[in-house]
Amino acid sequence: MAGDSFGRIFTVTTFGESHGTALGCIVDGCPPGLALGEADIQRDLDRRRPGRSRHVTQRKESDTVEILSGVFEGVTTGTAIGLLVRNEDQRSRDYEKIKDQFRPGHADFTYFRKYGRRDDRGGGRSSARETVMRVAAGAIARKYLAERAGIRIQGYLAELGPYRLNPVALDQVDDNPFFCPEPDKVAALEEFMIALRREGDSIGARVNVIASGVPVGLGEPVFDKLEADLAHGLMSINAVKGVEFGDGFRVVQQRGSEHRDEIRPEGFAKNSSGGTLGGISSGQDILVSIALKPTSSIQVPGATIDTSGKATEIVTTGRHDPCVGIRATPIAEAMVALTLMDHYLRDRAQNHEVDRGSHPA
Amino acid sequence: MAGDSFGRIFTVTTFGESHGTALGCIVDGCPPGLALGEADIQRDLDRRRPGRSRHVTQRKESDTVEILSGVFEGVTTGTAIGLLVRNEDQRSRDYEKIKDQFRPGHADFTYFRKYGRRDDRGGGRSSARETVMRVAAGAIARKYLAERAGIRIQGYLAELGPYRLNPVALDQVDDNPFFCPEPDKVAALEEFMIALRREGDSIGARVNVIASGVPVGLGEPVFDKLEADLAHGLMSINAVKGVEFGDGFRVVQQRGSEHRDEIRPEGFAKNSSGGTLGGISSGQDILVSIALKPTSSIQVPGATIDTSGKATEIVTTGRHDPCVGIRATPIAEAMVALTLMDHYLRDRAQNHEVDRGSHPA
Amino acid sequence: MAGDSFGRIFTVTTFGESHGTALGCIVDGCPPGLALGEADIQRDLDRRRPGRSRHVTQRKESDTVEILSGVFEGVTTGTAIGLLVRNEDQRSRDYEKIKDQFRPGHADFTYFRKYGRRDDRGGGRSSARETVMRVAAGAIARKYLAERAGIRIQGYLAELGPYRLNPVALDQVDDNPFFCPEPDKVAALEEFMIALRREGDSIGARVNVIASGVPVGLGEPVFDKLEADLAHGLMSINAVKGVEFGDGFRVVQQRGSEHRDEIRPEGFAKNSSGGTLGGISSGQDILVSIALKPTSSIQVPGATIDTSGKATEIVTTGRHDPCVGIRATPIAEAMVALTLMDHYLRDRAQNHEVDRGSHPA
Amino acid sequence: MAGDSFGRIFTVTTFGESHGTALGCIVDGCPPGLALGEADIQRDLDRRRPGRSRHVTQRKESDTVEILSGVFEGVTTGTAIGLLVRNEDQRSRDYEKIKDQFRPGHADFTYFRKYGRRDDRGGGRSSARETVMRVAAGAIARKYLAERAGIRIQGYLAELGPYRLNPVALDQVDDNPFFCPEPDKVAALEEFMIALRREGDSIGARVNVIASGVPVGLGEPVFDKLEADLAHGLMSINAVKGVEFGDGFRVVQQRGSEHRDEIRPEGFAKNSSGGTLGGISSGQDILVSIALKPTSSIQVPGATIDTSGKATEIVTTGRHDPCVGIRATPIAEAMVALTLMDHYLRDRAQNHEVDRGSHPA
Repeated sequence: MAGDSFGRIFTVTTFGESHGTALGCIVDGCPPGLALGEADIQRDLDRRRPGRSRHVTQRKESDTVEILSGVFEGVTTGTAIGLLVRNEDQRSRDYEKIKDQFRPGHADFTYFRKYGRRDDRGGGRSSARETVMRVAAGAIARKYLAERAGIRIQGYLAELGPYRLNPVALDQVDDNPFFCPEPDKVAALEEFMIALRREGDSIGARVNVIASGVPVGLGEPVFDKLEADLAHGLMSINAVKGVEFGDGFRVVQQRGSEHRDEIRPEGFAKNSSGGTLGGISSGQDILVSIALKPTSSIQVPGATIDTSGKATEIVTTGRHDPCVGIRATPIAEAMVALTLMDHYLRDRAQNHEVDRGSHPA
Repeated sequence: MAGDSFGRIFTVTTFGESHGTALGCIVDGCPPGLALGEADIQRDLDRRRPGRSRHVTQRKESDTVEILSGVFEGVTTGTAIGLLVRNEDQRSRDYEKIKDQFRPGHADFTYFRKYGRRDDRGGGRSSARETVMRVAAGAIARKYLAERAGIRIQGYLAELGPYRLNPVALDQVDDNPFFCPEPDKVAALEEFMIALRREGDSIGARVNVIASGVPVGLGEPVFDKLEADLAHGLMSINAVKGVEFGDGFRVVQQRGSEHRDEIRPEGFAKNSSGGTLGGISSGQDILVSIALKPTSSIQVPGATIDTSGKATEIVTTGRHDPCVGIRATPIAEAMVALTLMDHYLRDRAQNHEVDRGSHPA
Repeated sequence: MAGDSFGRIFTVTTFGESHGTALGCIVDGCPPGLALGEADIQRDLDRRRPGRSRHVTQRKESDTVEILSGVFEGVTTGTAIGLLVRNEDQRSRDYEKIKDQFRPGHADFTYFRKYGRRDDRGGGRSSARETVMRVAAGAIARKYLAERAGIRIQGYLAELGPYRLNPVALDQVDDNPFFCPEPDKVAALEEFMIALRREGDSIGARVNVIASGVPVGLGEPVFDKLEADLAHGLMSINAVKGVEFGDGFRVVQQRGSEHRDEIRPEGFAKNSSGGTLGGISSGQDILVSIALKPTSSIQVPGATIDTSGKATEIVTTGRHDPCVGIRATPIAEAMVALTLMDHYLRDRAQNHEVDRGSHPA
Repeated sequence: MAGDSFGRIFTVTTFGESHGTALGCIVDGCPPGLALGEADIQRDLDRRRPGRSRHVTQRKESDTVEILSGVFEGVTTGTAIGLLVRNEDQRSRDYEKIKDQFRPGHADFTYFRKYGRRDDRGGGRSSARETVMRVAAGAIARKYLAERAGIRIQGYLAELGPYRLNPVALDQVDDNPFFCPEPDKVAALEEFMIALRREGDSIGARVNVIASGVPVGLGEPVFDKLEADLAHGLMSINAVKGVEFGDGFRVVQQRGSEHRDEIRPEGFAKNSSGGTLGGISSGQDILVSIALKPTSSIQVPGATIDTSGKATEIVTTGRHDPCVGIRATPIAEAMVALTLMDHYLRDRAQNHEVDRGSHPA
């Protein structure tokens, strides 16, 4: 299986370029009997959609999803689900003038060298537009997990450049275009982004995801620890440069007596581990955090080379997100959903007969 | 393929528990014609071996590896390579008294609930002893990469609790039991560890790995980006709670104009990206960093429950690493080697015919 | 990876039902730089298309393929190729009256019990219409193999009920609707099929495929022997009940002195083995043969049960192939192409450095 | 995953050569809680063991299996199971004189060309000795299937050269060294084999396997149809040249009205399909049959070339099975067990929530 597939049992395989005809995916292994319609998927696609605010790309796309197979009379049949989203706003001409230049910080250079050619229209396959299908497939996983396993997945913007945002109102995350969990700070973020755009620059961000209601037992002992597969999925999102669980990099300075989560008959005393022990979910919330780099598609001129190796200067115009982290929240949620879904089924395959009892911890 | 395998083409599958009969692995897909003997593997195993200093577990094991197949007349044949290391020092009685208790911060609880039972001798499969086989398999990958592709992989201890260690003398990393790249600080580390042991506590650490000589073109566009697969491998190491590449979590505060690595005819101006662009190696050094939690096997008493759900107090005696990060350097190197090896072959499978030219960047 | 994917490196994943909106597939891992247009794929789809003669289903479909991604300026980019064929002639009402009955010899019963429901329109996912995408993906593999590796794949109808057809004119196979390699017998086949249709019955068939120009070295030693993967692919075609290589089941009566293919400096003396030794291609032609059962969609009434378990009688009207084997030739060729393509890349991944010399045998 | 692994969820990965140190495997994904000891595995190994009669290789091996991990206190833990069998009778000198010659009908030639070298001691990895580990792993699958799912797997010798053997006494298959199901014919087989050995020649065979008690629902719609995965597993056994299900190649001459298995409220009227419909088990017995070629390791001189391409004559002495089909019965059973086990878990993963009811058909 080549690199466009994710998951072992609940598998999603995607295709599609930024400025190609369409994006699509195949979701394989979905249990039958799940009520599913385009609206269930569209909801998450709309959360990710460009053009929701002036702080993200102004590309105009309805991102309307079409279910092509695997659903009959409103219910999944158990066979492969084909999804399709047509591209509508392929303004390739924006890219004409830089088609022989390698944008610094972009995949232009590496694609060109790896494959000997590249689709120069908007980044082709390397565009974040590829994540449309992650979100679409993730919506199916998420619906199943919510309805059959009681698992809820909620992401939010945790940092945007100098702003640290605390999860004081997770229920209001979807009410603002930043997925900001601290409503008081939305105005400041707006202002910051306006200033940034004026400078033609971009900014990094941190997105956190919490999965609650996760049963104990998901994940496998060695290479496919739950964090390992989550890290795989999250690090595969464009622009992500770091992933951490629970206390994350703070553990470097911690002592064992401080880090360990003591266990009491009524449950764990705290959640420094981020919801896993030995690679297997503990029944606590899964807490994961990712760092997203500032996009390199900026109007500040930069030095680069062209395809013949000669020095040149580049300025990226066109419709770009000055903070790719803003729209990353539904994408990160989708990758968490896909990973948990796969492990939910993997665990059921092997361990269905285990009596897990029901005491709190 | 279940969770004990890693890699798509160059695959390692492992087995073995802390206090079982033996640990072993099968390395599948190794190119033929590589000169390989037990000494090539033993070298890396010795670097990881317990008992090298008083700051790591005092378990006495020679960790002698036996090549059982796949090598004929000193050269790999192209068929499956079987490796075996017998356990020699299985002092299970250390665990007798805590066999019905769940050590906080350990896999005891999650294994018990996932599988309905657990091998209570030294953590069984969840023990860091499992990493012996990662190092053994990694040694093969590493040898191939060095000899055929000119790729070198070097790890070091970058932080230990309050100490930050700079890579001023990477060639001396192997000369001290900490894999410390700053020889002047070894004495201070010694002192710190002695005090820590006296308190019966443990400490976290950070390990960095640099892969140099990596050709442009390794990694795949979407889910199997090079960082995604590296993160998968590294996050699957026991105690790892975070992974970052290049500037890592610092990107959250960066601007695009600061982060992007400009390209000049003679090469990249800097390496904030950590050696990949769009998930594909750029020809720069791969820079990756992991956070390791302090082990929870400490003598400071802690609250927990037993298998019947009742509250109890636990004290872990026995032979434990007060800083699991110390011995993590060769393990992290091994996971980087295995990932690069797999992608080296994957890239060759698909893109062998591409003329990648030879200009610097 | 669930059951809708085939191949390890060159992977095809499909979706689509007989009477759904569309059929599609994703081809992952295709080398870049291959000239590819819709016409290249359409050629093979047209060979498989229904309605080519009165001896196959009269379903009216243009089976027009659309390339949605992975090709830029007429050449493959190395990224995922998305293909789509819209269904045009979904006369579901033919199935209304049997939607609560299980057609004997069909997947109706097993799908219903496995998934708890089934898409009752024309067999849904179990319909042979699914093979459209095998042929489409196979066309890409086949083009690469022909252009880059000199491998040619040719199938033909070898038996149809009582008729045994010898490969006397392989170049004329495409000139008749039966893929019959013996032009003299086409008239007899026509007559036989007309009589059969009058009786409302169906007939079995045998299809042979020859792959020539296959280099020595494709296939892997143990579970993924070349024949094993070919058998997997071919046996996964609807209605196939047997697969054999070279002398096939005739080996049961053979002696070793008779079966073994002696080797001479100028090559093998004969090809009883069918082109592999120890699971690895020998450089001889790959010879494989499959048995296709007569379809159970016939007008001869038969006993069955309905979804409530009650006895009933069934008559299948609608548009069915009285001999599914007739159109199986391009499908079998496609599965051979996909398997050889995958192994060609797998072999290159591991063994590219091997000097295979050039002496004849 | 390279070619030494079989299965998706219940996976076996093997290593080992004919004359190497040891053979071993890792069984991954086994459900926890299965009582398992070496004796459970040894029973099947003994059925396959050489030296059981004078009609098979006289190699003296106890084939004693050691469980190295994954079992604790007599019960599987859910983690990887490591198995090891040491080689004891490695008389490599038998091969000295033919080490530069390619035995016709053997893998010598293809291994040499594929890998650029070969382990010339007894066929190395290509030896049927590799099947020891198939049988060992299969024994675990088989025990689980019998105890938890009520599935029984029984193979027998169905043809040996000119002898056709009917399954009149399946309970006596293990009582004779041929796995012959027709006790009256054992004497004739003995006589035939003695004459054959005198001539220094070998003979082909057919082995049938019946799996009973298989629940409805195993197998997946498209590429991983149950027959496709069974064919993959069975065709990967050394010397197998054909696989067929139910009526197999006889379907070529059948009509639909004859082939289809009518369904009655009390069950299917007959079993021409061999236990699957649309790739999914129907609840009937799985009936599969394989053809095994006569070994080419015979004393009748044959023409071949040496590694430099020069013509030579070869005579294979040493300890060879004059009919490899004789010992193939437990091996074929093992591959059926491994395949059914994997699909049992795959089906549970996806479809556990489906209410399959309980009416007979």
